[in-house]
Amino acid sequence: MSEKKRRRPELGTSKRSRSSSSHAHELKNQLKPDTEILSSLHRLRAATQSSSDQTLTLSDLNLSSPCREVSDLDSSSVRLAIERAAIAAARSILSGNGFSFSIPSRSSSNQLYLPELDRIVLKDKISSRPFASLSTVRKATITARVLSLVHAILLNGIHVTKRDLFYTDVKLFGDQTQSDAVLDDVSCMLGCTRSSLHVVASEKGVVVGRLVFSDDGDRIDCTRMGIGGKAIPPNIDRVSDLESDALFILLVEKDAAFMRLAEDRFYNRFPCIIVTAKGQPDVATRLFLKKMKTELKLPVLALVDSDPYGLKILSVYMCGSKNMSYDSSNLTTPDIKWLGIRPSDLDKYRVPEQCRLPMTDQDVKVGRISWRRIS
Amino acid sequence: MSEKKRRRPELGTSKRSRSSSSHAHELKNQLKPDTEILSSLHRLRAATQSSSDQTLTLSDLNLSSPCREVSDLDSSSVRLAIERAAIAAARSILSGNGFSFSIPSRSSSNQLYLPELDRIVLKDKISSRPFASLSTVRKATITARVLSLVHAILLNGIHVTKRDLFYTDVKLFGDQTQSDAVLDDVSCMLGCTRSSLHVVASEKGVVVGRLVFSDDGDRIDCTRMGIGGKAIPPNIDRVSDLESDALFILLVEKDAAFMRLAEDRFYNRFPCIIVTAKGQPDVATRLFLKKMKTELKLPVLALVDSDPYGLKILSVYMCGSKNMSYDSSNLTTPDIKWLGIRPSDLDKYRVPEQCRLPMTDQDVKVGRISWRRIS
Repeated sequence: MSEKKRRRPELGTSKRSRSSSSHAHELKNQLKPDTEILSSLHRLRAATQSSSDQTLTLSDLNLSSPCREVSDLDSSSVRLAIERAAIAAARSILSGNGFSFSIPSRSSSNQLYLPELDRIVLKDKISSRPFASLSTVRKATITARVLSLVHAILLNGIHVTKRDLFYTDVKLFGDQTQSDAVLDDVSCMLGCTRSSLHVVASEKGVVVGRLVFSDDGDRIDCTRMGIGGKAIPPNIDRVSDLESDALFILLVEKDAAFMRLAEDRFYNRFPCIIVTAKGQPDVATRLFLKKMKTELKLPVLALVDSDPYGLKILSVYMCGSKNMSYDSSNLTTPDIKWLGIRPSDLDKYRVPEQCRLPMTDQDVKVGRISWRRIS
Repeated sequence: MSEKKRRRPELGTSKRSRSSSSHAHELKNQLKPDTEILSSLHRLRAATQSSSDQTLTLSDLNLSSPCREVSDLDSSSVRLAIERAAIAAARSILSGNGFSFSIPSRSSSNQLYLPELDRIVLKDKISSRPFASLSTVRKATITARVLSLVHAILLNGIHVTKRDLFYTDVKLFGDQTQSDAVLDDVSCMLGCTRSSLHVVASEKGVVVGRLVFSDDGDRIDCTRMGIGGKAIPPNIDRVSDLESDALFILLVEKDAAFMRLAEDRFYNRFPCIIVTAKGQPDVATRLFLKKMKTELKLPVLALVDSDPYGLKILSVYMCGSKNMSYDSSNLTTPDIKWLGIRPSDLDKYRVPEQCRLPMTDQDVKVGRISWRRIS
């Protein structure tokens, strides 16, 4: 996000220019009428709903080396797994061998992009984290502490944020990146999603439009959420009973665009659900999008900027991030359609040279990587 | 926020420690019963509601030098003011004098803290921004561009975000801090609030609890917003018809605390409205809090961390920020009561030495400044 804030080249120009109104008027005449757009949306939804229910999973592929994936586990299973790890450690100590955790490696070399699934998964390399080693004693201690904290959270039946967890022992963790990293390690080690640990990321997404769902038992009608929208709940396990008469889900990169669409009540003209994570996608929004797509079987159209960072955001929604590749099946939504202006439209719609910005090497690099992943 | 993320000393310890349960149990016995807490909350609300309606304003004070404040203006008044500025500039150019904007200075030397009002206001120094000067030509151009963009926004009857505005002319503005700063200049110059310009900041606050209000005509019942809560709308002018049976407003610093309270449905045990800006307060949340406090006449209790950055956040809610002192009357909520652990509680509740962190010079400085402002 930081590089994005500093400067942001535009391949196309998705920005409103309110001055050159005659040119704008000319472009407006090229728009298709609503009825035509609506009927193609109807066809798109029908195609999505009739497409094979079966999405490929890891087990469908005959991979030479096995891959690691996590799944949603209930509280008591996770607690049991933690207790097993603790007992194993205690036994090892009592038998004079000290203790060590076996943690699936999340390094780049252990990541694998599977074109068949169109997402990144984790290979099966395991690394050892012994307490009796100078290089790993700190991490082993943090791991033990996180395991014990998660156990207490599950026992109390509550949810906490990653930041909350960090604050429980600032002196040990030092800074939040360390407790966050170990939290992902613990997910991999126990074989459960981070949501199953009841540790959630701070939510920043909002949703509005033709969706009714339950948030912790409260029935939420997203057509009646004004301009501000409904905050996407941090804990996806309390989200249920999704209903919708929408034709599609509109994924929006920026809150500015979200606000404009909400203000115009765009979802009444074209029945849709509008969702944004306000920039880089957070875990809660990605889980929510995946859940909507899976349960409602709606096509997802993404309105992202036509620049390298727009592509990058799209690629995180579609293929996942390396950091959380162990849970890519829950976090990724394949088959998102890219809506909006393309670089090729620059010439097609005669966007003048002075409205364009040159790309830096970094921009080109981000663009290339993201494009390779989503195309 | 950045210094806060790096490290964060705790004067007190507002963190949950789930281990030392016997000590925790002992502390629990010192808690007052709910009935006692409820009756003191009732007294507090009664006191707030019977307190004099009249809050002091600038005009009540007989200040030797006048101060500048802005007010909410309707669209057409703002448009008229912009047109007047444009005509004045055109006349000046035609008479051979070039043109220049007269902009109220927002520098530190033009800020004044008024103890009677308990907030920062802007003094009346004006600086000139001529187009025909190397040092101001850029700023004068940006100012003219922002005026023209705001005029178009008002004409179209829409709202845009600060970021949206920046993107309209990336080449001219260079980076967003420049268009943001000029936007504040334009507010001061036209004598209207930034909301009146229809340029809003991206919202990040959420609200939950005993509040019913209208967001752009949609009736929102905040007791039925699950754990995620309702996103606070970016445009306060579309918020209306607030109703509440709450005894108080609970302002929470962190989304972690917000989530825990929402999950526990705390507002059913102690009738209240829970609101958070997730860290540093944004303009939308500050306006929303002020509106709630003014219309519902409820006491505001703040649950912030007992550290310098908690105090700083409290001071922004109460006394405003220097950057937007021209609109401090709309943005500040005086008389917020500080809830939670105090530094003096460290010894009172025998918080062990190893749970404390030393403060850096920077921490001490932030703490001193903030404390001076709120006490």
